[in-house]
Amino acid sequence: MNGKQRYGAGIWHFATYVDRYATDGYGEPRTIVDAIKLAGQVGDLSVVDLNWPYFGGQFSNEQIKAALDEQGLEVIGITPEIYTRKFVKGSFTNPDPGIRREAHQLITEAADVVRYFGADYVKLWPGQDGWDYPFQVDHGVLWKASLDGVGRLASENPDLKFVIEYKPREPRVHMSFDSVARTLLGIEKIGLPNVGILLDFGHALFGGESPADAAQLAIDYGRLFGMDVNDNLRGWDDDMVAGTVHPIELFEFFYTLRRNNWQGVWQLDQFPFREDSIEAANTAIAFLKKVERALDVLDVDALQQAQSRHDALGALKIAQAALYSA
Amino acid sequence: MNGKQRYGAGIWHFATYVDRYATDGYGEPRTIVDAIKLAGQVGDLSVVDLNWPYFGGQFSNEQIKAALDEQGLEVIGITPEIYTRKFVKGSFTNPDPGIRREAHQLITEAADVVRYFGADYVKLWPGQDGWDYPFQVDHGVLWKASLDGVGRLASENPDLKFVIEYKPREPRVHMSFDSVARTLLGIEKIGLPNVGILLDFGHALFGGESPADAAQLAIDYGRLFGMDVNDNLRGWDDDMVAGTVHPIELFEFFYTLRRNNWQGVWQLDQFPFREDSIEAANTAIAFLKKVERALDVLDVDALQQAQSRHDALGALKIAQAALYSA
Amino acid sequence: MNGKQRYGAGIWHFATYVDRYATDGYGEPRTIVDAIKLAGQVGDLSVVDLNWPYFGGQFSNEQIKAALDEQGLEVIGITPEIYTRKFVKGSFTNPDPGIRREAHQLITEAADVVRYFGADYVKLWPGQDGWDYPFQVDHGVLWKASLDGVGRLASENPDLKFVIEYKPREPRVHMSFDSVARTLLGIEKIGLPNVGILLDFGHALFGGESPADAAQLAIDYGRLFGMDVNDNLRGWDDDMVAGTVHPIELFEFFYTLRRNNWQGVWQLDQFPFREDSIEAANTAIAFLKKVERALDVLDVDALQQAQSRHDALGALKIAQAALYSA
Amino acid sequence: MNGKQRYGAGIWHFATYVDRYATDGYGEPRTIVDAIKLAGQVGDLSVVDLNWPYFGGQFSNEQIKAALDEQGLEVIGITPEIYTRKFVKGSFTNPDPGIRREAHQLITEAADVVRYFGADYVKLWPGQDGWDYPFQVDHGVLWKASLDGVGRLASENPDLKFVIEYKPREPRVHMSFDSVARTLLGIEKIGLPNVGILLDFGHALFGGESPADAAQLAIDYGRLFGMDVNDNLRGWDDDMVAGTVHPIELFEFFYTLRRNNWQGVWQLDQFPFREDSIEAANTAIAFLKKVERALDVLDVDALQQAQSRHDALGALKIAQAALYSA
Repeated sequence: MNGKQRYGAGIWHFATYVDRYATDGYGEPRTIVDAIKLAGQVGDLSVVDLNWPYFGGQFSNEQIKAALDEQGLEVIGITPEIYTRKFVKGSFTNPDPGIRREAHQLITEAADVVRYFGADYVKLWPGQDGWDYPFQVDHGVLWKASLDGVGRLASENPDLKFVIEYKPREPRVHMSFDSVARTLLGIEKIGLPNVGILLDFGHALFGGESPADAAQLAIDYGRLFGMDVNDNLRGWDDDMVAGTVHPIELFEFFYTLRRNNWQGVWQLDQFPFREDSIEAANTAIAFLKKVERALDVLDVDALQQAQSRHDALGALKIAQAALYSA
Repeated sequence: MNGKQRYGAGIWHFATYVDRYATDGYGEPRTIVDAIKLAGQVGDLSVVDLNWPYFGGQFSNEQIKAALDEQGLEVIGITPEIYTRKFVKGSFTNPDPGIRREAHQLITEAADVVRYFGADYVKLWPGQDGWDYPFQVDHGVLWKASLDGVGRLASENPDLKFVIEYKPREPRVHMSFDSVARTLLGIEKIGLPNVGILLDFGHALFGGESPADAAQLAIDYGRLFGMDVNDNLRGWDDDMVAGTVHPIELFEFFYTLRRNNWQGVWQLDQFPFREDSIEAANTAIAFLKKVERALDVLDVDALQQAQSRHDALGALKIAQAALYSA
Repeated sequence: MNGKQRYGAGIWHFATYVDRYATDGYGEPRTIVDAIKLAGQVGDLSVVDLNWPYFGGQFSNEQIKAALDEQGLEVIGITPEIYTRKFVKGSFTNPDPGIRREAHQLITEAADVVRYFGADYVKLWPGQDGWDYPFQVDHGVLWKASLDGVGRLASENPDLKFVIEYKPREPRVHMSFDSVARTLLGIEKIGLPNVGILLDFGHALFGGESPADAAQLAIDYGRLFGMDVNDNLRGWDDDMVAGTVHPIELFEFFYTLRRNNWQGVWQLDQFPFREDSIEAANTAIAFLKKVERALDVLDVDALQQAQSRHDALGALKIAQAALYSA
Repeated sequence: MNGKQRYGAGIWHFATYVDRYATDGYGEPRTIVDAIKLAGQVGDLSVVDLNWPYFGGQFSNEQIKAALDEQGLEVIGITPEIYTRKFVKGSFTNPDPGIRREAHQLITEAADVVRYFGADYVKLWPGQDGWDYPFQVDHGVLWKASLDGVGRLASENPDLKFVIEYKPREPRVHMSFDSVARTLLGIEKIGLPNVGILLDFGHALFGGESPADAAQLAIDYGRLFGMDVNDNLRGWDDDMVAGTVHPIELFEFFYTLRRNNWQGVWQLDQFPFREDSIEAANTAIAFLKKVERALDVLDVDALQQAQSRHDALGALKIAQAALYSA
């Protein structure tokens, strides 16, 4: 794998943001084409995940492709925006069947964009599907609607992969696809081969999971279709720069991927609200390359011996030696 | 269901406790027979869950039965203590196969105690099965060991039910059976009819779940074999008196059980470290009886109408009216 | 106090919101005049806290006053928006002295608006003052800048009160004024009589405080200048409708205010993202009126007796009896 | 400071533990003399903090001194056990004045032990002082009792230092001395020069503080009298081995100490429940020595430049370079 690891990023990494306080934004608005140009300036970026519809203006697929070509970037996935105003009460689970149809339609269009680019998957992040208050919903009905919505798309588009990115919460107080286990449970219920998980390291951390354990579980079910990384303080989806707060657990996460011979792009899902987005990407990738080197020198046999004894300090000594010297 | 709801408690509710600071305990040590006598003084308790081996002395099943009979108590389940010194590195997942065998043996003996009492289930709470540090374990191996251990017991004892009580953590920094979804995923993998979940309201709350949603999910899989309640501040398994902090979510939890026509004992899993254990039980049961009455007067049709619109405030108004007036 | 309790709300309660996902907003944009009209439709609202500059258009103080008069509303405080794009790296603590001056200027203008309306205070919510990453700031310098900034305003405007609304975090990963104790420590250091605290119930809950304890502490320092309420799940500033999740602690909070004979407006700081804002206010106020009645019937002597013994269950029984019967 | 940094540990690091599940303990009970012998086997330990009364048997000060001398260890502080059975409802804040007197007496005796050993301080960790339930206590009375209790000891023993070790919670659901700011506020109210803080890195992390910021604040008030380190997952006081999970924030913490020229022992407060206690100490100290070397090579001028701009990524790059290469 030496030297061949490909890196990617959600294109929103290079956008600017708003939140409920800085409603005028953390910077000048950018179009998706602006963002692509910035992405092109990152040292080692090969692929991007694109929001759809394209933000900041009217752009054709051809125009986006030209912009990407100019930067030497390919598309790994398309993220339909099923969490905007129309969908604030849910996409798959919206109480209004008309809105559920609109969500379906939007994702179906996104599927065509995936085909256009020859990308790997449609990424589903149903951040508005869930609940806020006790007693608000019939939980059985809600969960069934989530599975029905995803299942219908997957069966209508058997040529494509659909990946679900789970998260405990935000913007809903509780998201239906909240954890790796819940998502796998749903995927098994759907029972189709083309539905998988996109595992976000920070979402796992936020949810109290071990990201390495979450990855192993998804792999054991044959459902780890994608991943991205970032960092946070474990209490919120801060989308900080990867490696800045939890380097050890990030290393364990990538170790788990390599141990399972998981081939795939190492992606970034960062929101550099107040940082330069190029520098934020470069900083993260520099750390990921350090992780790559560390994996190359890690004494895997000794580590596995220690793990077979559940010898935490022995295992950590081996891991630290590899990471800190790399 | 009026007037017929049965109440239960873990017998440890009537024990005293130690922790890592008050190593001399929060009160004089009690035997399980002492605890049974205290349990008998609670107004509305019909059944208890017994730790096994019996604590505080050498007691035969017959002696325990006599003590229970005297108090008019029956046994709902037996909880083998697979989390004591011998098992601090795990029961099902212990790196030492000899210890794994001892855990198996202990639980097998507990199964006989279940048979002796004609109880409902063996309760498995593998609180020492999990990990503390990054890199400590091979997560795939660990999880498989958990499922193998439970599965073997279930297949060897097809006449009995085994219930798994999940919890996010404590005493391990992370417990393998950490959530309702993870536990259901494991149970489905085991694939036997006699393995289910004992859902602890406080564990769900602690894990960031909606207890009502967790109950619905377990019911939808036909795996809700038992339940108990308590309360906490959502950040730890405080095992406080039920209803004292989160009455609304507790009411939603019981509403979900009734909506699904779930029949079963309403149990307490409280640790009244500094409170009188009889008063703690009576206080909780008084609140649960209020919940029962509230369920009787709840306008279910109107509530479901509101839920079909995801109308949080409308639904809550109906729920509050029932609870506060009951 | 019967029947005379005044109720208030932040005017943003009646706005619509954006966040980083629903960038097109949770509803049609509203001007502050729109919001005032909605506020006027709430049953029992007497006063509002106004963002400044006025949002949604160019409005003179006179226009706003006319709109308020039409709805029978008065102004309790003015909240200068020191957390918008210009200030995303801080207001008082911005590394750029020019921006710090702009923050000072903006707040100074807000002080004049307070004078115009004869309001009670300038509300300072320095949500962008803090840090995100380890090593990002010199913590001593940062904290000093916070105190210098607030202190200068208070000394320049001795005729006015300044209230600081603390919160653990958001939008910064960590806010400098993060807790009641930290804020009091800063206020004591500033040493001026016209700086106090606006205590947000939900911020206290989110920060792991007992809101009642936080109120008592601020009162004991003579610094509780204002308060508002809402609810959340203790892990984020959800700004949900007051009383919907944590009714008991909300009751204890108001009990503490009354015990100390704290006179002041009971305000709402709610963000009804997906709810009708009038209904959200009415629902909260209906619960607060229940709390008022409960305080009238609460057996305070018996409660204090129980508290003198730290008798949790005894005290709760008395409190529950008052709240649930009110 | 090269090569001269002294290391210490709480002697309980070398004890075994019980908790509410493994009531038979995580290993064979040890006496304090056993623990001292183990401590002596750690490579670089110079001082220990001793529980008092001495655990595991009847030992005179002279016996303990002999055991320490044999291992080349000195005493930095004495920790009176004001959190055992007698004090489960509080030491300074116990509702029973007789128990409050016993706490006072116990600590007064501990003060004599400090004098006997020429140690630095009496350490107060009032882990049972606080509350569990809403409405349980009168918060004003409780806090005043805490300050009165500490203040009386400090004024009766002006020749000694008293350090308060704050923690958010455990074993109480909420501890009165819960944060650095609350503790400083109390210390300022007490107003005596010989009361300070012992800052536990993990308690700060658990409480949502930046440990570096907490240290800076305590130093700015002249109250950082001691410190110890460990690690956790930010949601509980796990007392894991220092540096194993959060190396960056640990480095920032020590950077803050050195920047302020804080001289003092670097102590460990770890609870190696399932690990070898000598190895746990050695692993932590090996990491702390790495931190020492990193501080020696850190480009402080460049770091401060970056911090003056709040340039998180620039600052982290400098910090990471020093830590990872050290």
